[in-house]
Amino acid sequence: MQLTGQQNGAGDGSLVHRAMRAVTDHIRGQSLRVGETLPGEAHFAAQLGVSRAVMREAFGALGALRLIDVGNGRKPRVAAMDGSVIAASLSHAVGTAQITVPEVWDVRRTIEVRTAALAAASRTADEAANIVAHAEAMARAGDDLAEMTVHDIALHNAVARAGHNALFVQIVDSFGPLMEVAVPTAWRTRTTDEERSTIIERHMAIAQAILRQDPAAAAAAMDGHFDATVGVLLQTTAAPGPIAF
Amino acid sequence: MQLTGQQNGAGDGSLVHRAMRAVTDHIRGQSLRVGETLPGEAHFAAQLGVSRAVMREAFGALGALRLIDVGNGRKPRVAAMDGSVIAASLSHAVGTAQITVPEVWDVRRTIEVRTAALAAASRTADEAANIVAHAEAMARAGDDLAEMTVHDIALHNAVARAGHNALFVQIVDSFGPLMEVAVPTAWRTRTTDEERSTIIERHMAIAQAILRQDPAAAAAAMDGHFDATVGVLLQTTAAPGPIAF
Repeated sequence: MQLTGQQNGAGDGSLVHRAMRAVTDHIRGQSLRVGETLPGEAHFAAQLGVSRAVMREAFGALGALRLIDVGNGRKPRVAAMDGSVIAASLSHAVGTAQITVPEVWDVRRTIEVRTAALAAASRTADEAANIVAHAEAMARAGDDLAEMTVHDIALHNAVARAGHNALFVQIVDSFGPLMEVAVPTAWRTRTTDEERSTIIERHMAIAQAILRQDPAAAAAAMDGHFDATVGVLLQTTAAPGPIAF
Repeated sequence: MQLTGQQNGAGDGSLVHRAMRAVTDHIRGQSLRVGETLPGEAHFAAQLGVSRAVMREAFGALGALRLIDVGNGRKPRVAAMDGSVIAASLSHAVGTAQITVPEVWDVRRTIEVRTAALAAASRTADEAANIVAHAEAMARAGDDLAEMTVHDIALHNAVARAGHNALFVQIVDSFGPLMEVAVPTAWRTRTTDEERSTIIERHMAIAQAILRQDPAAAAAAMDGHFDATVGVLLQTTAAPGPIAF
């Protein structure tokens, strides 16, 4: 990882790296969990023999990476993973043409075909009801594309959660900022009632397969959904939205 | 994203967020590409009416997230995506028990079954030869587990690259630090010649399917490999290694 090295005057990024490593080693060595507190800058600075400025830069970088929460005047704490770091990377990479929209859709399809199968195998009754409710809300949304988009994205997120794999949940969450642009774009391109009905029916098929605990049908329904959707989207040049911090 | 807010005195994280957003909006608005330069802190500070300290913190956070490269005395540049940010998130989440090793393996299997199919469809002749060469090097490694591990990891990375989807490449790369611990652990649990031969044969099957451009066979071979490997790994409690910055 590249760091600025500006704030320690010496421009020695490796000092900051060492300082960051000392903090993550402490977390690992003490088996700390989310929300538990870490010693402050002064402790690590003395232990490592580095300046407070170096430790401040290291804490800042670890905060930016969401490995720790560094509040004002509070002790730093171990941070919860939240997908925003991966989301910022993704949005940046798409926005600067390092990865293409079709590449993102292939990754999403691959992941969501699996989360659909996992959801069918692992969902609770409440989770299944919630997924079905989002599909029904899509069917009721009619021409209200904002409402449609909200339930479309929420359904995909609910499927990931119902699969009970925390890493898949984070990855699907990290696609959120891109989806908030791509999903309304896709809906706007579906101008006929028939096109829209087809998409709604595909979401209903995903929800129903998860409800009746049929992983193969859930995976097939998700795959069919992406077949239909990607075909439409690749005719558009949906630019990703701004990066949300 | 949580930021420290410590360096601007006022503790106003939202100012830093606004400053970060101004930089990413500039990148987007100017359609900048990797390696292109950005204005310095002074430019953005004047434009936004914020202090240099706020801009310095914003640049530091963007550098930590690998959205920009901020060298000493050089102008900041648009950074290339490199997987290390996702890797740091992943290692942290596993190390603090936010995600489990079996969850990571399910995600890897899902992704690599797809990259194997893509590689079979898209690999160049050189890429196929390289993948086969890594499988052959594994077969020659014998009891040299360090050598085995190097070629095992390299083969999986080469398969991802041969699939020609830059996002899959980044994701597979981001698993690197976890794999550098998990792969040798897996090999140590394979104590009989028969067990090791089976794993080597599975890698050879992946390589051969990619060589003969058979996506279904490549996907099936990768899936079979994970079936065998995950069974072994879930009997171990491989802790992830230290986070590499």
